[in-house]
Order: sequence, then structure tokens, then C-alpha cells
Amino acid sequence: MIVLGIDPSLRSTGYGIVEVQDNQVKYLYSGTILTNPKLELSRRLLEVSKQINQVIQQYQVELACCETMFLSKNFKSVMKMAHVRGVIFSALANHEVEIYEYSPREIKKSITGNGNASKDQVKFMITRILHIDDSIGYDQSDALAVALTLVNRKKIV
Amino acid sequence: MIVLGIDPSLRSTGYGIVEVQDNQVKYLYSGTILTNPKLELSRRLLEVSKQINQVIQQYQVELACCETMFLSKNFKSVMKMAHVRGVIFSALANHEVEIYEYSPREIKKSITGNGNASKDQVKFMITRILHIDDSIGYDQSDALAVALTLVNRKKIV
Repeated sequence: MIVLGIDPSLRSTGYGIVEVQDNQVKYLYSGTILTNPKLELSRRLLEVSKQINQVIQQYQVELACCETMFLSKNFKSVMKMAHVRGVIFSALANHEVEIYEYSPREIKKSITGNGNASKDQVKFMITRILHIDDSIGYDQSDALAVALTLVNRKKIV
Repeated sequence: MIVLGIDPSLRSTGYGIVEVQDNQVKYLYSGTILTNPKLELSRRLLEVSKQINQVIQQYQVELACCETMFLSKNFKSVMKMAHVRGVIFSALANHEVEIYEYSPREIKKSITGNGNASKDQVKFMITRILHIDDSIGYDQSDALAVALTLVNRKKIV
């Protein structure tokens, strides 16, 4: 089973792909979709759409997972994130990929045992669980944490 | 020039298309994209994406216009709308259609002269300006109002 975790943002969307086979979780790939802040919103959304479509196809993604949204003080940035989620969700539906959502707290708890863990603590656990080095950015370690939470919670084997 | 006005919502997105030629504005078409509330968010977004793509292609849309977003008390419905805007904006960028945005107040003022006009007042003016009967719903009259605001403000002739 190929599972995609996504940490969406207009500027840099992190994604991580793991494969689950015979009760083993294997790291396949992680990356970041960057968009040019000088471009219009619609162009940036199109860029995210194109790149996430490519990722879904290339890795034959079967399940996806994303953080739930919550009301933050920064209305503008939450709005931007919702636009990005829109194109990502639509792309996943277009490839018939089912999407699960967990709260940031659930994800941190699932990975580190602590719902208030820092990004560093999450990254530390991700690199240990998946046997990868710590050169990846937080957007990618967060995305891999989202993917692993789905694997843990759904008991994918 | 073919101008598309959009009133996005997850349940029913209204759209209206006008043509501007020789200083005359002509009504071309208006419609509503309905999605099934029983389906998952991602499926509904894909449905909006497919239908808006079809509209853009069929009418060879050249410019588009949408209301700006504002923080309302209902966070959930604003979030849903932002997801829908994401797929619509991405579709417009994919067809190289430029997008303009005006606030609800600017739109009402541009159409009726009153920034606090009711939906009925907007619809009344739209049906008079475009010589169409009043059988269209508010989602379509609002979308046509958005299109006409762009025509007025940009002095498209």
C-alpha cells in the first residue's frame, strides 16, 4: 500500500510517501512543492496542482492523509492553505485516492507519544522510524508524520 | 471580450457569462454547479473543477471575476468556500484567464449604487441591465453582478 502524507501551504507544500508491505513501513520519497510568491495566487495554485498530480501518478498513491484545518489567528494564511488544499483534494479525487485527516495533536501524539511535541521531536522520531538522515526539512518530516499516523491509526499492514 | 463572474460555494456555485462588444454588454449564459452534499469533500471539489473547466472552454472565457473573501462568523463555511475557490482559480490559470476580485460592497455599489443593497435589489438591476427574466436564482444574479462589476470598473468595451 502506497501512502502519501501532505503538509499543504501556498509557499511550500511538503509531501512524503511511504510503502507498507508485510507489516513493514518503508520510506519511498519526500519532497517540497515550492511556488513563486511573485506570481498570482491562481498561477501558484496551478503549479501545486500540476506537481501533486505528477507525484500521485509517479508513485501510484493509494491512500492520502492531511492535517485537519483549524481557526488560527492568521486568517489570511489559513485562507491560502484552504485554497491549496482545494486543488490537492481535487487532484486526489481525480485519481480516486481516499483522503484521511487527523488533527496536528493526534499526529504528534501518534508519532512521539506527546500531543504537544515540537517539530524537532517529530522529525527526530520520523528519521528513526524510517531510517533516513535528518537533512529533510520540517515540511517533509511533518508530511511523513501525517502519512505514518494514517498507517498507525488504520493499522495498514 | 468574454467575461465570467463566479459566486463560489461548495453546494452551489453560481456563474454568469457576458460578452462585451462595441460598448454593449450582452448576456450569454448563467448556470449553477451543484454538488451532492452526501459525497466527500474531495469528490465535490473534483465535480466543481470538471464543470468550471467545461464552462471556461465552451464559452472561451477571457477574463474572470470573483468576490474577495472575508472573515465571517462561520469559519467552516468560509473554509469550504476557500477550497472551492482553489480549484476554480487553478482551472482559470490553466486556461490563462486573468482573475479580478472585488469586495461584496464594491459589487453591490457598482450594480445598484448602494453598497448595502439586498440580493433582490442586485437581481432586479441585473435583469434590467441584461434584459433577462427574473427566473434565475441569487447565485446566478450574484455571479452576473460580479462579471458586470469587472466590466464597469475596467471599462471593458
